Amino acid sequence: MSSVPGVPATDAALRGFASDNYAGAHPEVLEAIAGANAGHAAAYGDDRWTKAANEAFRDHFGRDADPYLVFNGSGANVAAIDATTRGFEAVICAETAHMNVDECGAPERIAGAKLLTVATEHGKITPDDLSRWEARRGDDHFAQPRVVSITQATELGTVYTAAEVEAIATAAHELGMLLHVDGARLANAAVALGAPMRDITTDAGVDVVSFGGTKNGLLFGDAVVFLRPELGEGFEFVRKQLGQLASKGRFLAVQFEALLTGDLWQRCAAHANRMASRLAEAVGAVEGVEIVHPVEANAVFARLPRKAIEGLLGAWPGERAFYVWDAAANEVRWMCAWDTQLEDVDEFAAQVARYAAG
Amino acid sequence: MSSVPGVPATDAALRGFASDNYAGAHPEVLEAIAGANAGHAAAYGDDRWTKAANEAFRDHFGRDADPYLVFNGSGANVAAIDATTRGFEAVICAETAHMNVDECGAPERIAGAKLLTVATEHGKITPDDLSRWEARRGDDHFAQPRVVSITQATELGTVYTAAEVEAIATAAHELGMLLHVDGARLANAAVALGAPMRDITTDAGVDVVSFGGTKNGLLFGDAVVFLRPELGEGFEFVRKQLGQLASKGRFLAVQFEALLTGDLWQRCAAHANRMASRLAEAVGAVEGVEIVHPVEANAVFARLPRKAIEGLLGAWPGERAFYVWDAAANEVRWMCAWDTQLEDVDEFAAQVARYAAG
Amino acid sequence: MSSVPGVPATDAALRGFASDNYAGAHPEVLEAIAGANAGHAAAYGDDRWTKAANEAFRDHFGRDADPYLVFNGSGANVAAIDATTRGFEAVICAETAHMNVDECGAPERIAGAKLLTVATEHGKITPDDLSRWEARRGDDHFAQPRVVSITQATELGTVYTAAEVEAIATAAHELGMLLHVDGARLANAAVALGAPMRDITTDAGVDVVSFGGTKNGLLFGDAVVFLRPELGEGFEFVRKQLGQLASKGRFLAVQFEALLTGDLWQRCAAHANRMASRLAEAVGAVEGVEIVHPVEANAVFARLPRKAIEGLLGAWPGERAFYVWDAAANEVRWMCAWDTQLEDVDEFAAQVARYAAG
Amino acid sequence: MSSVPGVPATDAALRGFASDNYAGAHPEVLEAIAGANAGHAAAYGDDRWTKAANEAFRDHFGRDADPYLVFNGSGANVAAIDATTRGFEAVICAETAHMNVDECGAPERIAGAKLLTVATEHGKITPDDLSRWEARRGDDHFAQPRVVSITQATELGTVYTAAEVEAIATAAHELGMLLHVDGARLANAAVALGAPMRDITTDAGVDVVSFGGTKNGLLFGDAVVFLRPELGEGFEFVRKQLGQLASKGRFLAVQFEALLTGDLWQRCAAHANRMASRLAEAVGAVEGVEIVHPVEANAVFARLPRKAIEGLLGAWPGERAFYVWDAAANEVRWMCAWDTQLEDVDEFAAQVARYAAG
Repeated sequence: MSSVPGVPATDAALRGFASDNYAGAHPEVLEAIAGANAGHAAAYGDDRWTKAANEAFRDHFGRDADPYLVFNGSGANVAAIDATTRGFEAVICAETAHMNVDECGAPERIAGAKLLTVATEHGKITPDDLSRWEARRGDDHFAQPRVVSITQATELGTVYTAAEVEAIATAAHELGMLLHVDGARLANAAVALGAPMRDITTDAGVDVVSFGGTKNGLLFGDAVVFLRPELGEGFEFVRKQLGQLASKGRFLAVQFEALLTGDLWQRCAAHANRMASRLAEAVGAVEGVEIVHPVEANAVFARLPRKAIEGLLGAWPGERAFYVWDAAANEVRWMCAWDTQLEDVDEFAAQVARYAAG
Repeated sequence: MSSVPGVPATDAALRGFASDNYAGAHPEVLEAIAGANAGHAAAYGDDRWTKAANEAFRDHFGRDADPYLVFNGSGANVAAIDATTRGFEAVICAETAHMNVDECGAPERIAGAKLLTVATEHGKITPDDLSRWEARRGDDHFAQPRVVSITQATELGTVYTAAEVEAIATAAHELGMLLHVDGARLANAAVALGAPMRDITTDAGVDVVSFGGTKNGLLFGDAVVFLRPELGEGFEFVRKQLGQLASKGRFLAVQFEALLTGDLWQRCAAHANRMASRLAEAVGAVEGVEIVHPVEANAVFARLPRKAIEGLLGAWPGERAFYVWDAAANEVRWMCAWDTQLEDVDEFAAQVARYAAG
Repeated sequence: MSSVPGVPATDAALRGFASDNYAGAHPEVLEAIAGANAGHAAAYGDDRWTKAANEAFRDHFGRDADPYLVFNGSGANVAAIDATTRGFEAVICAETAHMNVDECGAPERIAGAKLLTVATEHGKITPDDLSRWEARRGDDHFAQPRVVSITQATELGTVYTAAEVEAIATAAHELGMLLHVDGARLANAAVALGAPMRDITTDAGVDVVSFGGTKNGLLFGDAVVFLRPELGEGFEFVRKQLGQLASKGRFLAVQFEALLTGDLWQRCAAHANRMASRLAEAVGAVEGVEIVHPVEANAVFARLPRKAIEGLLGAWPGERAFYVWDAAANEVRWMCAWDTQLEDVDEFAAQVARYAAG
Repeated sequence: MSSVPGVPATDAALRGFASDNYAGAHPEVLEAIAGANAGHAAAYGDDRWTKAANEAFRDHFGRDADPYLVFNGSGANVAAIDATTRGFEAVICAETAHMNVDECGAPERIAGAKLLTVATEHGKITPDDLSRWEARRGDDHFAQPRVVSITQATELGTVYTAAEVEAIATAAHELGMLLHVDGARLANAAVALGAPMRDITTDAGVDVVSFGGTKNGLLFGDAVVFLRPELGEGFEFVRKQLGQLASKGRFLAVQFEALLTGDLWQRCAAHANRMASRLAEAVGAVEGVEIVHPVEANAVFARLPRKAIEGLLGAWPGERAFYVWDAAANEVRWMCAWDTQLEDVDEFAAQVARYAAG
């Protein structure tokens, strides 16, 4: 288990466990941006960096993949849903899905899609969940399910195996639906499974992916990748209309080129996962601390005494604070990032132990 | 007239006159980003760089200014319109307005606003244009005008004086409307007038501004600034829902801090304006070339023989090409940027002369 | 218990228990329409019948009531929600609410409102349900609850008492929310409680009502009634934009005049309720038939053996069929209307007994 | 020229020339409604009257026609546009089009379509108008023209010939667009041309029609008729979501059955047209009165001295008033309806002459 690449261990800056988007950009990403800054480049994605980024996406997701760069994950999700649904169509997703609880109603108002939600165990939908609304297929009083959206890795830090994804894709397709993957942390899922990203997307029957860059070391930037290219027809207009077309597109593209051409995506995600694993191991052994979801990617969800939570929050304020996930249940989320340091984990685990001891 | 600050004149990179968003980021902006990259920072704008950027906005637009950072200019415009109109309200703008011709119908579909357009001379609305629809005030069959939107500097490179803005604001307010300024190039307008930005906004009665950063040296980034703070009530939700809330907000904010705290905004805009002025002077003297709009900011619109246009486009391909603005009328647009070099202008003007000579 | 007024008992036409909108129009309503047909009348509601209908609404709901006639119940609900929410605001309603399961996603796409749903007992929300999302009040990632919508009588045939409505209104107002009542069957609820309609609306703190006419004897027609008039500001535009402004408005208005000026609303609703009560009494005594919700208005929900359901559906085909409400649970809905005849009920109850006996 | 069928000439009720929607329902329509009122009928269009109405539509528009009944003309237009455009697509129409000036921005906000308007002579688009935006075909900054919408008869009382419609259809199809006809007064246009309705729709290459019933003798009711049935795929959901699905569908359907099965549609429209023709002839001979558009259907547009307009409005108040179409130009609209009487026309023409004489 190595320290994070490119960040001097002596960096005095504070780091915590609130979110992987509390982390900055990986130095290689900043270098890539600086390297793309000379002279003029055609705007709106008609530049060589965008071509290179698209090529990198096709290396990962297959030659038919049709990628579009956007600003952020909510933008990717909403635009993907908008492009794949008519106004009266609905999306099946987990109750805990980011698009259900963290996008301020944008899927509904902007993409015009009703969300049909499923209670899950550990954030994962099952194929059986998909047929729940089939009795109303063809009934014009009911929004028609058209897309199933799963999050990979899930909002609860769990990971769908390739077989699980494929089973959902098959079930969705049999019902005339598409499968969308909110892959804000797709890299974390892939490295957790030790699989190439296409194994859990293209080859598992996924139709469209929101691919996350922001949480895995970019300054900003996510992408919508259509894996059946006919689905992307007209998407350049959707992206523009939804405010997700970057003007100076090269600066979005060059970050993805840096992330995906080599193994940076893997290094960053693997490191974050390892840190979460180490943290889970350390705190899992602490009496009074219960890990509430399998730790399969870069998040640790734990239940611990309210007093311990309060103590920890007092000791790690500001940027170092973490999210109380469910106050009533005394559940917290601790998220690791590409830049989480070994010593951060160890220091934090020690404090958890201290505060749990009361 | 100096060369551009921070870019070595010997830089081999190509530059042309297509758009100010073909230019890269100013080196000081990149430095600022690198300087904000250490450690963790709270996401979504709850960070010290955002506080500093907001403070800088208030220094320019007054203590009551309520700024919100967004990804791009279209996002700023659409969110500003969404926040200030109910579903049945309309926006009066010039036929040539960016929101009418370059935002892919987003104001209509996303903000739900009908656009009522005005034919203009040189892109500028007059107070008289505002009352055209008053006969239908209160008529429930007609979308009710609620916002007047002007672009400053206009899409045709002209600038409203403070008095002109104030006259429009007064007329708008008398009719119960608000005045929005699409300020994608507000800095260019202000330096053209030799005025602080608040003279042509806050102090002229403007209600809300889309403030442009991208075209004036940022990597990416614009802002919505409410000048009457009650208008911004709830805008944080609008921004999020419209996909314009940056996850790692510090990297958006630190760019604005770099731009607005010192005089970078002014240096960049003044330089671009000077380059346009120089270009206009040079090509205006060429026989067969007609300058079609007053050159008041950083754009030169010219009419020249079709053969000359074709020759120039052949000689300056790719990133160096420019926009044929109106093919039927043989009108072109030449846009200068913060990084346009003296020698770029002189070389291009010489070529214009050569091709115009036939 | 009288037979239905105005319909000869020997009428050969078929009647069943599918829905109260399977019934036709009350003869007095048709007469009123014919009586309003002579000569010209100003269109779009600027006529004397609309004035009279509005006056009748104010007689029922108070002098401050601000009524707007619309075509149908879905239109009333969606327009009411659109008028009372901003784009990022949400509506709390029961999982079983018509707007959640029978309006084809219109509240989401057309009114732009996310629905936050509550599992209920017998279709009734409680004041405690309202605070469930308060932890996210002010969090710009989450659509903000602004309206609570209850259905009166509920979709499951139950009725909120005036005290229950008031408790919900108080809880809603304390949280800065409004209370909307989907009153597609408000008349049925009022007569069930033996109360004037204003007791369970205006005087109970309700802010806005969708008032149903279609299911209570009209040809077509519902209304949105704002009980706090400032909430209706601009609603004439909302109604028009949402396609709910009738061109020949007198024909919508004169129906409401007929319904509300005298006691027709009461006669129709009371009769439907009595028929349901009689049916419930009759089938409730049948072995194998279980009444699953309190029968308080004009609907009977029952669980009975699958074979009995199939037998009944076979014996009462077409217009006389009824809805299988929950196939998995063997639950059916039997709805009575203003024109349901005593002999319809008795014949049907006898058949239920016959098929339940197997 | 006969008097109106079914209305006693001695009817004391007032009639004027404001609009054909100031007229009531034709007595045969009311009779048809009364005749459909017995017993129960399946709701939402699953009834025998709807089948009969649909069959009548296919008799007029061809066996492939796919009709959907809706409440009103705005609803028909907005739903038709919603069904045939994606979110980023636009509609080309005349500046004077009802959807541009009389639907309160619904095409934009509800159907999400930008309107690209054309200045016309006498309200009629020409094939040349369609290519105006082709330079931006494929440009993701611009809403893409997808539908051309013409009004037949136009809002200015003129009529497109079959050849003119066909030329527009051909031009539209060549550019990959569809042709929509707003046929709020399609019957008036057909009888004006002495042609079956399919000659100016189906056989002229039209793709989808909004068919008007309200203005031609119904209580209420219009229809969307897809002439290429694949375009109607899913439209039942669009209709429901946009609030245009009538609950007691039989009452909508039976009106269309009455209108379209025999020649009622023709009688009503022909009569209205004849009355307009007679009025135009009479007032056209008056000095000081200028007919400003060809009188081809049931509307007369005239210019006359302001004092004459004021005098007439004073003498014919309330329901008998007419619309001042363009106050600045002293233009008025006089509209005839199915129930306009000979003596109404003659009396009015005499008054026009009197007031024009000053």
